[in-house]
Amino acid sequence: MAMRLYELAGADPARRFSPYCWRIRYALAAKGLDFEGVPWRFTEKDVIAGHGSDKVPVLIDGDRVVADSWAIAEYLEDAFPDRPSLFGPDPGRALARFVNAFADAVVIPGIARLVVADIDAVIDEKDRAYFRASREKRFGMTLEAAQADREVRVEAFRQALHPLRMVLRAQPFLSGATAMHADSIVMGCFQWARCVSPFRLLASDDPVEAWRQRMLDLHGGMARQVPAFD
Amino acid sequence: MAMRLYELAGADPARRFSPYCWRIRYALAAKGLDFEGVPWRFTEKDVIAGHGSDKVPVLIDGDRVVADSWAIAEYLEDAFPDRPSLFGPDPGRALARFVNAFADAVVIPGIARLVVADIDAVIDEKDRAYFRASREKRFGMTLEAAQADREVRVEAFRQALHPLRMVLRAQPFLSGATAMHADSIVMGCFQWARCVSPFRLLASDDPVEAWRQRMLDLHGGMARQVPAFD
Repeated sequence: MAMRLYELAGADPARRFSPYCWRIRYALAAKGLDFEGVPWRFTEKDVIAGHGSDKVPVLIDGDRVVADSWAIAEYLEDAFPDRPSLFGPDPGRALARFVNAFADAVVIPGIARLVVADIDAVIDEKDRAYFRASREKRFGMTLEAAQADREVRVEAFRQALHPLRMVLRAQPFLSGATAMHADSIVMGCFQWARCVSPFRLLASDDPVEAWRQRMLDLHGGMARQVPAFD
Repeated sequence: MAMRLYELAGADPARRFSPYCWRIRYALAAKGLDFEGVPWRFTEKDVIAGHGSDKVPVLIDGDRVVADSWAIAEYLEDAFPDRPSLFGPDPGRALARFVNAFADAVVIPGIARLVVADIDAVIDEKDRAYFRASREKRFGMTLEAAQADREVRVEAFRQALHPLRMVLRAQPFLSGATAMHADSIVMGCFQWARCVSPFRLLASDDPVEAWRQRMLDLHGGMARQVPAFD
């Protein structure tokens, strides 16, 4: 039986926008593994509570249940060693963890402050009160205030991406000549943004933008073939 | 003949404080290569101009001259493949480049604003006018103003290190179970700081501080055996 992956979905169940779920979509494609993506909404906590998590992604592989995008990537790597490697030999996995930490601590919070009110417009009706209340509590302001002045603040976000830019000036992918999971981790963040918002995060001449286009081309253009804005 | 490494030195020629030079000190130790460290001062541009660089580190290996800390690390890795690897197999080198970019774009500028006036006190007399003028131009303020309020601003620096902290909570070194060049790259930044300033950059319970102590222990405590503040 194919694996099942619980993925955050919008009002349109085909709009799967979680950055963490996209990391796993890329990982499953890189491993060449079939899976059934199951749409899940923020307020369907009961659906996954039985799997010991209150967040997606959650991967069900027979009687194995794995939650958390990093843990799922490690599971896929170790359970399918004959498939293409996500990390390469040591220290590939250890260093990919640093890329993961940079994505979680810098890229995702940065994007959130630029698109969060747009998310409100694409999520399922039943999620909207939960989403607004939880995010406004997190930011300490309305979604609209969190996103205000984004045309100005996007410059600070672009500046915060400078370590990525320095690398992508020197090599085509973060992982070198070919993309590996470290690339998918960061790309999940940008795919999240394009699934929820028309806002342009990157300048057209940014090496990060050129890399983003290469990542969109991977796996037969998988990430382009979904409801998204650009 | 042993290699020669031009290294930035202070008034005390034994005070070798450049973060970029320390990356190479660690790399040479990891490779087990003998070298002669040649003290160099900011204003001795003519000494290294013949080697095609105006900055250290510059490595002289017979008739090979290599400048720039990343280029030197790559040179050592490729020229001495039978010695312990600095990067491990692909994608280790590619991902270490991202750590290098994070160190250059986040860690070094962050530390600079916390210790730059202290550097003025340890450098050679002949370097002081050059150092002050060039750095005050870079910061757009006096060295003392650049460093002011550091007890408050250190919190933002610690926050910017969060990606390192997330990784070092999960594993002993950035490169995994053992330190590799990615660790040396970041440690060079902290070794620079302790060579020039008594200012405490890290809280004692920070996982980054525990890692820093492990890095100080490496190679027989090499980095502890130099003029430094802590």
